[in-house]
Amino acid sequence: MEKKIKIFDSTLRDGAQSNGISFTVEDKIKIVKDLDFMGISYIEAGNPGSNPKDAEFFERMKGIELKNSVLVAFGSTRHAGKKAEDDMNLRAILGAQTPAAAVFGKAWDFHVTDIIRTTLEENLSMIKDTIEFLKAHDKEVFFDAEHFFDGYKENSGYAIEVLKTAKAAGADHLSLCDTNGGCFPDEIYEITKKAVEELDMSIGIHCHNDCGVAVANSIFAIKAGADHVQGTFTGFGERCGNTCLTNVIGDLQVKMGIECIPAENLSMLTRMAAEISEIANCKLSKREPFVGKYAFAHKGGMHIDGVSKAPKSFEHINPDTVGNRRRFLTSEVSGKSTIISIIQKIAPHIKKDSEECQAVIDRLKEMEYLGYQYEGADQGFELLIRKTIGKYKPFFELETFKIISQYEAKARLTAEELEKETATAVIKVKVKGRSEITAAEGMGPVDALDKALRKALEVFYPQLSTVRLTDYKVRVLDSKAAAASKVRVVIESADEEDSWSTVGVSQDIIEASLIALTDSIEYKLIKEIEKLIQFY
Amino acid sequence: MEKKIKIFDSTLRDGAQSNGISFTVEDKIKIVKDLDFMGISYIEAGNPGSNPKDAEFFERMKGIELKNSVLVAFGSTRHAGKKAEDDMNLRAILGAQTPAAAVFGKAWDFHVTDIIRTTLEENLSMIKDTIEFLKAHDKEVFFDAEHFFDGYKENSGYAIEVLKTAKAAGADHLSLCDTNGGCFPDEIYEITKKAVEELDMSIGIHCHNDCGVAVANSIFAIKAGADHVQGTFTGFGERCGNTCLTNVIGDLQVKMGIECIPAENLSMLTRMAAEISEIANCKLSKREPFVGKYAFAHKGGMHIDGVSKAPKSFEHINPDTVGNRRRFLTSEVSGKSTIISIIQKIAPHIKKDSEECQAVIDRLKEMEYLGYQYEGADQGFELLIRKTIGKYKPFFELETFKIISQYEAKARLTAEELEKETATAVIKVKVKGRSEITAAEGMGPVDALDKALRKALEVFYPQLSTVRLTDYKVRVLDSKAAAASKVRVVIESADEEDSWSTVGVSQDIIEASLIALTDSIEYKLIKEIEKLIQFY
Repeated sequence: MEKKIKIFDSTLRDGAQSNGISFTVEDKIKIVKDLDFMGISYIEAGNPGSNPKDAEFFERMKGIELKNSVLVAFGSTRHAGKKAEDDMNLRAILGAQTPAAAVFGKAWDFHVTDIIRTTLEENLSMIKDTIEFLKAHDKEVFFDAEHFFDGYKENSGYAIEVLKTAKAAGADHLSLCDTNGGCFPDEIYEITKKAVEELDMSIGIHCHNDCGVAVANSIFAIKAGADHVQGTFTGFGERCGNTCLTNVIGDLQVKMGIECIPAENLSMLTRMAAEISEIANCKLSKREPFVGKYAFAHKGGMHIDGVSKAPKSFEHINPDTVGNRRRFLTSEVSGKSTIISIIQKIAPHIKKDSEECQAVIDRLKEMEYLGYQYEGADQGFELLIRKTIGKYKPFFELETFKIISQYEAKARLTAEELEKETATAVIKVKVKGRSEITAAEGMGPVDALDKALRKALEVFYPQLSTVRLTDYKVRVLDSKAAAASKVRVVIESADEEDSWSTVGVSQDIIEASLIALTDSIEYKLIKEIEKLIQFY
Repeated sequence: MEKKIKIFDSTLRDGAQSNGISFTVEDKIKIVKDLDFMGISYIEAGNPGSNPKDAEFFERMKGIELKNSVLVAFGSTRHAGKKAEDDMNLRAILGAQTPAAAVFGKAWDFHVTDIIRTTLEENLSMIKDTIEFLKAHDKEVFFDAEHFFDGYKENSGYAIEVLKTAKAAGADHLSLCDTNGGCFPDEIYEITKKAVEELDMSIGIHCHNDCGVAVANSIFAIKAGADHVQGTFTGFGERCGNTCLTNVIGDLQVKMGIECIPAENLSMLTRMAAEISEIANCKLSKREPFVGKYAFAHKGGMHIDGVSKAPKSFEHINPDTVGNRRRFLTSEVSGKSTIISIIQKIAPHIKKDSEECQAVIDRLKEMEYLGYQYEGADQGFELLIRKTIGKYKPFFELETFKIISQYEAKARLTAEELEKETATAVIKVKVKGRSEITAAEGMGPVDALDKALRKALEVFYPQLSTVRLTDYKVRVLDSKAAAASKVRVVIESADEEDSWSTVGVSQDIIEASLIALTDSIEYKLIKEIEKLIQFY
């Protein structure tokens, strides 16, 4: 691969401006770590001057070292008529202590005169002063030329002058923005080419998807000489979203041979897209190119036949390249191959055409009908297999389980008020004929349940004391059934060695949590026993 | 508008091959009527030879007259080594009695030799015989050149020969297919241009979205001289889907001035996209260009300010054109202008620079810090404003509220077992000095709470009996805090006239639900009072 470009991720800044998306500081840190691990060149992670949450995030990031990525703080050019050094927003960027900063300024004359209502000259000074100020503090500076393409179409002279001003002030990179998302690939190509010729420096592209062509626009800008692409996972952003980076990376690197991330990380693409969507609590579209669940799924008989004879007959790339996989949706046989490989991990003697294998497939179908889904709960599925093929003996019996929740008259609306336990769980378990009853309080019924269950069982199984719950997710399965909707709870547990995921479904969130928790505990105990057997 | 192209809709054929989509005959008829009403030129509605449901559909269609659209039946060329008149599939196309037929044939030599495993000559004969057979029965014939672009890239001579054979046999239109979705706009442009020059007849384009560029590809084919676009609403189709027709119509007709449907029908686009998605039981993406709920939604304060001054500052088209509308969303990044416009709906005398306005902004920030988010809960935000500016008096007081949940020893794992109430809520409310205590059972604590609260309050406010919960969503805010995570609950309620959304946050899902439910009830009661005042 000879040509290389850089990826500039703005999931945590422009992506966070999506309606319905709101990242916690913890979410942001997790995503930064993911992007760094994948080898994304730049991570624009927030606007420290605009909200306290981002300020807190940048504080937290000061103690975290990135291996591959450069962290970028975002803001705007100084306000009209003010000095750069007095601008709170610019001072917040310095306070963030990131190696790089991205600032946006107006490149469309109409926006200068009619929206921010200043003169064309003052706008140029704002750009100049801002960049000089940041360069004086040793930042690597990206200048985002907002509305550059619309501006160029109406007044190309001024749009280019804006870029030249930024260059003269010392900007390291210029990003050309199609802020309104109204441009087409051929326009983007022509105008980017002009900018590359005139400026002769690092030029990037930032598109929005309002015409459904943001990915094509970004590719055409690269063809015209741009060297970096701004975008988000997986297309989050205001209105119709930003350029989807999974598409860009797939298209440029897999199809066109232009390196975007280290080649050995390409196969992380599918997992990362799923993980970032999950953190954002947005369902990744199954139809998403490259990384969607259906991206390489074949339904029609002729397509399945074709792909079986030669994958290239109905697949434009090998799904492994991006960490995805082929799926045959109507084929029992293909389903069986996957399932038998999991069964054989537990019981190597079971064959594909055995009754046990069929029984597992039947049970899986029943469970999926109830709303279970084992894709994010592999260990839950292992337990289901054990229960179905008879390689399972319960470790405990639940004799009584009651939860009492009691609330104050007044809704608690401050952080301090919320720090109080509201629920009590009473639980009685029986292990090898011996009963144990206990109770625990928690912040809500699920927390109380978790505490009580462990408290009762640790009497018999002290090894459970190393287990922690590390993740808890709830998905309402049929939200139209309102308060009586079924929910699916997925929990992730961990001990000192590894982590595992289990799932429960019920109309009652407490019960769904109970099922997932019980499976988690049983999985841990089975794991311990198998380790003992192995060393015996 | 001088230039015109035709839209060829395949929602009911290629779109129906999407995973997870399955139309009933009734669904299909409804969609055909919608497409006809909108003025779509061709409707490819099924494959009568491949499944009995489509055969029944075409039977039913014989009694239905279309005003604007031509109905098309789909099938493949005759089988290798058989006669066209003996081919059941072709006879089924005749049996469908549609004015037009679309048949696909292989245009990639590799597919001929390695997948259907016949000779290149026999493949040409299959195409010739099939088209001649259909033309002898007076059909308007579309020939879909499957894998045309991949075929052209590997053996352009044979791919063009396939098209020439179809033309000589009498085909009325040739559709060039990027069946695997692996091509880019510049390739599509070059190759389509060649085909248009060589064939000099009606040429169409059929793309798939595996690289995320199907829309751009279709536009580039039109630029190269194609006169019709095949696609689906709203991008349904195998794997990553087909070309999305709402994007194509928006781009070509609104932005580029190329007529696709009668100009007066353009404003139906948003409604039709929503309706077809609803029938397909697929949620229309909120980010969908042109027709999505967020396509013209503005969240950032600067964007809202800009659009208020001049819509073109952040909108590439006028949303009315396609029947969509502008939305301003509330969040910590949205500015005073949005918030004051909502405040003034409640208290018109409050000004932007008043203390009250600042108090609301401060309160909003506090609430967002706690995990509240009002973007999907407009009425919850109205109540927050009322509480902050003092335009609020509680309708009831909660005196006691307790929930008791009791579970069986065994996890319930069948649909029948799940149909049982697990929770009891006991609630005591006070209204104007009078107390009411009651209890209710429910499927889980939230359901029990909802029932008990309404039961107690309906004694005082009978108008609450028309309120239904219509949607219930849960979002775990910091899932790493596991069972003690904060959750945000958003509920949607409705009466006979309208619907409203409210939100609650707590570590305890029951309490979060209680907050949202209380707000919902209070909103309803305020709404009723304001109606009375209005009529007074």
